[in-house]
Amino acid sequence: MNPHLSASDIPAGFSFAATHCGIKRSRLDLGILVSDVPATAAAVFTKNQIVAAPVIASRKHLRKARHEMRGVIVNSGNANCCTKEDGYPSSVAMASRLAEELRIDRTQVLVCSTGVIGAPLRVDKILAAVPHLVLVRSADAGAFEEFARSIMTTDTRPKWATARCRVGGKQVRLLACAKGSGMIQPNMATMLAFIATDASVSAPVLDRALRDCVEPTFNSITVDGDTSTNDTVAVLANGMSGAPEITKAKGADYKNFRKALHSICKSLALAIVEDGEGAQRVIEIEVRGASSEGAARQVARTIANSPLVKTAFAGADPNWGRILAAAGRSGVKFDPSRANIWIAGVAICRGGREHPFDERVAHQKMLAKRVPVRVDLGSGKASARVWTCDFTIEYVHINSSYRT
Amino acid sequence: MNPHLSASDIPAGFSFAATHCGIKRSRLDLGILVSDVPATAAAVFTKNQIVAAPVIASRKHLRKARHEMRGVIVNSGNANCCTKEDGYPSSVAMASRLAEELRIDRTQVLVCSTGVIGAPLRVDKILAAVPHLVLVRSADAGAFEEFARSIMTTDTRPKWATARCRVGGKQVRLLACAKGSGMIQPNMATMLAFIATDASVSAPVLDRALRDCVEPTFNSITVDGDTSTNDTVAVLANGMSGAPEITKAKGADYKNFRKALHSICKSLALAIVEDGEGAQRVIEIEVRGASSEGAARQVARTIANSPLVKTAFAGADPNWGRILAAAGRSGVKFDPSRANIWIAGVAICRGGREHPFDERVAHQKMLAKRVPVRVDLGSGKASARVWTCDFTIEYVHINSSYRT
Repeated sequence: MNPHLSASDIPAGFSFAATHCGIKRSRLDLGILVSDVPATAAAVFTKNQIVAAPVIASRKHLRKARHEMRGVIVNSGNANCCTKEDGYPSSVAMASRLAEELRIDRTQVLVCSTGVIGAPLRVDKILAAVPHLVLVRSADAGAFEEFARSIMTTDTRPKWATARCRVGGKQVRLLACAKGSGMIQPNMATMLAFIATDASVSAPVLDRALRDCVEPTFNSITVDGDTSTNDTVAVLANGMSGAPEITKAKGADYKNFRKALHSICKSLALAIVEDGEGAQRVIEIEVRGASSEGAARQVARTIANSPLVKTAFAGADPNWGRILAAAGRSGVKFDPSRANIWIAGVAICRGGREHPFDERVAHQKMLAKRVPVRVDLGSGKASARVWTCDFTIEYVHINSSYRT
Repeated sequence: MNPHLSASDIPAGFSFAATHCGIKRSRLDLGILVSDVPATAAAVFTKNQIVAAPVIASRKHLRKARHEMRGVIVNSGNANCCTKEDGYPSSVAMASRLAEELRIDRTQVLVCSTGVIGAPLRVDKILAAVPHLVLVRSADAGAFEEFARSIMTTDTRPKWATARCRVGGKQVRLLACAKGSGMIQPNMATMLAFIATDASVSAPVLDRALRDCVEPTFNSITVDGDTSTNDTVAVLANGMSGAPEITKAKGADYKNFRKALHSICKSLALAIVEDGEGAQRVIEIEVRGASSEGAARQVARTIANSPLVKTAFAGADPNWGRILAAAGRSGVKFDPSRANIWIAGVAICRGGREHPFDERVAHQKMLAKRVPVRVDLGSGKASARVWTCDFTIEYVHINSSYRT
């Protein structure tokens, strides 16, 4: 699923390293991503009002460094959230130690954590490991893959994506990794994504491009409707490709870059859903015929978070009644007698009523790894797409097992 | 759990009957509740905009008969929802047949259905069974218990409750049954509740009392956040106790009656949650210190519907981080650093941070059949309570099994 990486996929001027510092029992749990030169940065953080210390620190650093960043330090295994007075100082210490080793200002470092919340962070273990990481960091594909692994929690596999595009006749590269809605025992899922590119993009344009791309991708996936306290998507654009700076959110260069960024965000978002806890399949819910995009999204989200819909998909059951009922309670008004539903391409409900279909065929088609659902509300022209996964016994296993 | 019933629990002038008419394979699937004289009626229906035919028919009948009703006819096994053109006529036919046999107007009959949606209703089987039901109906406790059984779908047990109170120096009786969020394979849960009383209450006062009682009881429970298309709670007050009519929503008589009605609604609502699909335990979520009752309810509901919170309770895991994170994404603003959380009476989070507690003790206490959770937001004086159940592997089993 992850594309094979070679040295030529690594954007110029970036290096990576990862190690096991001792937060987790044995797996990689600390990683750094460094740009040789200051990179323009943009980031999107969790909308949960319970916000982890690293998110508070990263927001402040971005502002103070005026979005000119040099790197990211991430630990997994502990979210440093709802921790005692030392939570915020620990995040700052992580950034400071990396900054010292790189001889830069600490505000030029983004800091992220993912894992257990409410447990004290053994930041001493992290700090002790940083000098080694700085020493061994490299621009190898292998180093990047290790970095991608070091941010995992209960993800079953690392997730990365690459893209290239042309800006001012020059090629620029984008490389990114993400961790998803594998739940870290015993607490909550966090989504992290880091995008490195050697394009040159002005800060406001990069911010705009990132926000535009996050909405229909990372913000359109759901595993269980719960929002983490640590979610972070960050992009660093260091300009080392030599391509001209993109300074306007229009024109061919911007469009090329935005398209590449979108493709990366989309493939990582889908990889997160595919690797959702206990997931057997991805459900792509497309709501059409809504009065506005917001209304379409609200209906799609309600369907995507309905435990009844998600368990029906676990059993590959073409249970359109649950889909229609979820739409009906979404808070969006529509005329049920104009609603049509297709599951896995099979027309299954017409005008709010069952349309004759072969259940065996629908069931077979629903056993696929990716099942499209289309709901046409028949009351407008707007549409939206949301991706979710099925709700399996394994999900309950993962999330109900008592902490050990 | 259900109180033992004797003849003296049956409100004067009511009779009941139930039978197996052939909608389900072998269990009771059709019931009637009849008042000897016109009874003042009030009802609350589903808020889902996908509304089943019987709900449409019942609403119309209530209006046309000016809330003076004689009885209820209910079938289980088929919800008569999203059915073809014959859905509404089928509901009307059910009411008409009962009305014919009782020699009353069909608008004096409420009609309810619960079960599969989207499948055609074999109304012929129902109609054929009505004369027999009318013939055998009786005021025996046993007949009522059979009626309570006939409305079940995947409920594992019938649910009833009784209450008495004094109105104008006379005793009045209330008797009620409900079915819950057992999911009928393959579709959706429906909550139905029928309350019979020999009190005399004017229509507007009965309506007011019912709505006041439904909000903190039936409307404060959730099994999976999904809303059925058929939910109905109806009360019939036939005045046969001889107690004076309650015509105002104040005074001792009203307060006594309302208290009795509330106690019935609350015990049935809790019985529904206890019998929720796959449920091992009931979680009582009390949110305090909110700026308004609406805000408190919104936070409580978000916690109650969080799959992460519900799976943690399945494992008796005192995972307060998930509770705080759900509150944080509820859309209600509060200062996390002032939030306190107790689980099963154990103070577990203070000021948004972990409060030292004995995990083993908390785990043991969470193994109880009913676990209280208290969240104090520290930002106001309003509170609300919501009941839910834990989210178990059995829930997924029940709802993902492919229809056979």
